[in-house]
Order: sequence, then C-alpha cells, then structure tokens
Amino acid sequence: MTSITIDQVRRQVEADAKTYGYYLTPQQDLLQMFSEGLKTNEERYGYPLCPCRLATGNLDLDRDIICPCDYRDPDVAQYGACYCRLFVNKDVYESQNLPEVPERRPIEKQQRAYGLPIAQQPSQGENEKTPTPQQAKTVGVKKRLWYCKQCGYVVYREDPPYICPICKAKRELFAEIDMKVEFNG
Amino acid sequence: MTSITIDQVRRQVEADAKTYGYYLTPQQDLLQMFSEGLKTNEERYGYPLCPCRLATGNLDLDRDIICPCDYRDPDVAQYGACYCRLFVNKDVYESQNLPEVPERRPIEKQQRAYGLPIAQQPSQGENEKTPTPQQAKTVGVKKRLWYCKQCGYVVYREDPPYICPICKAKRELFAEIDMKVEFNG
Amino acid sequence: MTSITIDQVRRQVEADAKTYGYYLTPQQDLLQMFSEGLKTNEERYGYPLCPCRLATGNLDLDRDIICPCDYRDPDVAQYGACYCRLFVNKDVYESQNLPEVPERRPIEKQQRAYGLPIAQQPSQGENEKTPTPQQAKTVGVKKRLWYCKQCGYVVYREDPPYICPICKAKRELFAEIDMKVEFNG
Repeated sequence: MTSITIDQVRRQVEADAKTYGYYLTPQQDLLQMFSEGLKTNEERYGYPLCPCRLATGNLDLDRDIICPCDYRDPDVAQYGACYCRLFVNKDVYESQNLPEVPERRPIEKQQRAYGLPIAQQPSQGENEKTPTPQQAKTVGVKKRLWYCKQCGYVVYREDPPYICPICKAKRELFAEIDMKVEFNG
Repeated sequence: MTSITIDQVRRQVEADAKTYGYYLTPQQDLLQMFSEGLKTNEERYGYPLCPCRLATGNLDLDRDIICPCDYRDPDVAQYGACYCRLFVNKDVYESQNLPEVPERRPIEKQQRAYGLPIAQQPSQGENEKTPTPQQAKTVGVKKRLWYCKQCGYVVYREDPPYICPICKAKRELFAEIDMKVEFNG
Repeated sequence: MTSITIDQVRRQVEADAKTYGYYLTPQQDLLQMFSEGLKTNEERYGYPLCPCRLATGNLDLDRDIICPCDYRDPDVAQYGACYCRLFVNKDVYESQNLPEVPERRPIEKQQRAYGLPIAQQPSQGENEKTPTPQQAKTVGVKKRLWYCKQCGYVVYREDPPYICPICKAKRELFAEIDMKVEFNG
C-alpha cells in the first residue's frame, strides 16, 4: 500500500528528534536497522509501528506503540533513551552508552493486544475481558476528550499522553472535558 | 491594520522551519521577496497569505493557503520544497537546486475561492455551487471535529491536515469525532 | 510530592526554547536561579510556576503564569525576551543586553488571583467579584472550546492563547467552537 523510502523515514525521525531536543542513536547500524523496521511496518500496517514491539494490526490496540510511542517522552526523561534506544538525550548521545530501558507499556495493554496471560502476572484462569488474537482485529477502545489544564491542548484518546506535546505538562495535569455529549466512537 | 516588521516575519518563518526540520530557501533575494510578500498580506488581509497565491479576503476560503499552507508538508516530503520554494529540505538547501513543485491545492478549492471555471476542467455550463467573486466574501465552509487516530490531536476544520503537526501521521489516519452534537459554525 | 532534578528542568527549557527558535538567557547565574525556582515551584505546587510571579496554588487561577507562560510568545515577539528574561531571541542572546519587559498579565487576572485592589486601578469600594485569598483556593474559571481559524488547532481554556502553538496565528484568529453542548467544567 503506502510507499515510503528509507530516506523519508530517516528525515522524519530526525526532524522529530530535533523538535523535542532529542538525538538519534549514535550507533549507525542500529539507526539503519530501525529505519528499515519503520519502513516495513509503515508498508505492512499503514502506520510506523515501533520496530521493537509486536503489532496486532488493529490500530486502536497498537496506537500507543506507534513511533514516536506514548512511552518515549517519559522514558527519555527518566532513562535518557526510549525503549528502542532510537531516541536518546544529549548525555547518552555524547557518551554513546546506551542505557537499559524497561518496558513501560502497561501489562493490561499488552494483555489486551495479544490476548495472552502475561508471565509476570499470576494466571487467574479465564479472563473474560481479554480478547483472543482473532477477536483483537475488531475490538475498539472507548475514547474521550481530554485537555491539558496547563495549556488547554485537547486530545481524543483512550487516556491522556504522558507529557503534553505543547507545553510539556505531565499526565497528571490532564483532565476529561466534562460535557453532556454522547460519543459514538 | 496589523503592523509587523520584515524582521519579525523572517524570525517567524525561520523558527517554523526549524521546528519541522526544514530550511529556508538558500536564495537570499527570494527570501527577501517572500518576507515582503508575507508582510504585505498580513497587513492587507490580517493573515500571512502565501505570497505565491491569490487571496479572496474570505478567511474560510483562503485558510488552506495561509503560510505555512496546508500543502507545504506533503510538498516538502515529495519534492523537497513547498510550492513557493520558501521552505526546502536539507538536500535542496545544500544543492541549491530548487525543484519544480506543481500546485497541490485541489481544483475544487481554487474554483470555490475564485468562482471561475478552471481551464483544466471542461466547462459544464452553469455551476450552481461555485460562488461568484462577490458572493465569495460571505461564503462559509462546514467545519467538523477531526482527531488523529495515532496521537489523538484534535482539529476543527473543513478537512484534516495532510500531516499531523504533533506526531506526523498522514491524513488517512485522521477520522471525524463521532458524537451527537450540532455545530453552528 | 513530584521530584525533579535541576538537570531535567534545564533540559526541558532548553528543548522548549529550541522548538520555538528562542534562546535561554546568556547569563549563566540567572539561568541557574530560574532553574532552581522552577524546580521549587514544581515540587511545591505540582506545576512549574513562573519563578518571577506569585502563586495562589489554585491551578485555574495560576494557569496563565505556568512556564512557558501565556505571555512569553507575545513578549519575545515585541521585546525580544519574556517577562523573566529566561527566554530571549537571537538578537538579545547575541548582544547580551537584556531588555526591560513590562508585565503583560492583565490586571483583572492579577486581581482575581490575589484578591487585592490593584494600585493602578482607582479603588471602587467593595468589588464583589474579587475573591479573597481564602476563597481563591476553590474558585474555578469558565472554560470553552476555542479553535484557530488558520490551522484548526483546538484548545479548552478560559481564553485563547496569544499565539497558536501550531501555526503561530495571532489570538485574533481564534474563535469559539459554536455548538450546542453544555460544559460542566
């Protein structure tokens, strides 16, 4: 479907890194590998899924791990790099020491996406809310209108971002817009 | 009405280029000419209309060609430069070879704005939907709430942007927010 | 409550300056002082209140003076620096001459926040609408959905921003989204 070149992918992540004051990984072979992974995912799913994660092909379930993923900003703030180590901060870029970055994606989102009992959680027999892989393709998620109490930025998502892309307020400063409206989405 | 200096215009386009990882045209005489054009349009219409296009003076009809115009991002991605060649990518900036960039603005939007039969389209006699230049001043357009399915970014426009300004998702990833609300705008 | 290091504060304002094409104050002692002030306010109030202003501790009333404050962009455009002189433009950065920047925050917002008759305004006896400092903690403000007529950007705030963070349109290009909805917030 969508055709995109490695160069376009590279330019996009470069520009995105600059916007946030980040750097791309100093390891050129990793950068090349990630660019190819993003290109492949873009062509396969229609969106640049994180090359270090597993897609379901259902945009609603994969949304949080599309690059730049929801977890990049808090990960760079805390560890100096995102989960993939594609985006790093200045210190990591200059030292070239890539840190270990644990998976921040909540276990419930992993479980919902892949329909598998997760090893870290004790199995609780049948979990009615976890869709099987077959069902995952058509599952939707409930979206709401959130706003940043600091700058007013509005998003329509299941849950608010970790960091406001406009004013960099943290997630706790987001609240739901409280209005009498029925959303059908 | 609004007073703005050439320096302010220049600083604004410079900052905007940086944000997106773009460069300004390497030809200093063009840059000077565009800055003057943007200043003139800002003072004449109240908004910095693209210096390479024709205004109607009706913001609703001119909206897509206010600088940075709706077409800049897909044009820089595809051709390395916007229609004006004010914004260019790194390759074009370094090579100094400005590419030809065809007009991406849809024929229907040109027609709606200028109320003229467009040469490329065969004339179909009277077109009831095309306003005459006199009518154009007061015509409004139907706006809707759209959201980016990738990052949740919300816009209130006639149609979604070509590229999400927050996460750079492409237009196909925008959808209308489906809710029971009557918009009066 | 929230723990944040001086380094994180510094990196955040640096990235934010870059995004908008601004520079941080060239005076290193000021930069250090502001970073400490922002860290202190973040820990005390849960948000990085401008280190040059007085907090009420009520987010709704303090919102416009959280860094980067509402007034930064028009101040840098007009004077070359924000009220604090933390963010400056290129000319100021290079000349190292920090300009005087008058307080742009409207007198009504100062009055509402601090519940004090303001010296510049003639006293009009009892002002029923001005909350006392005790009341200020619980006062809310009426928020509305605004959109940028240039790019469609949507915010949920008491009043629109001075400059659109997406397309840099000025405040006059924002309008309320006119729809039949009751907001409870």
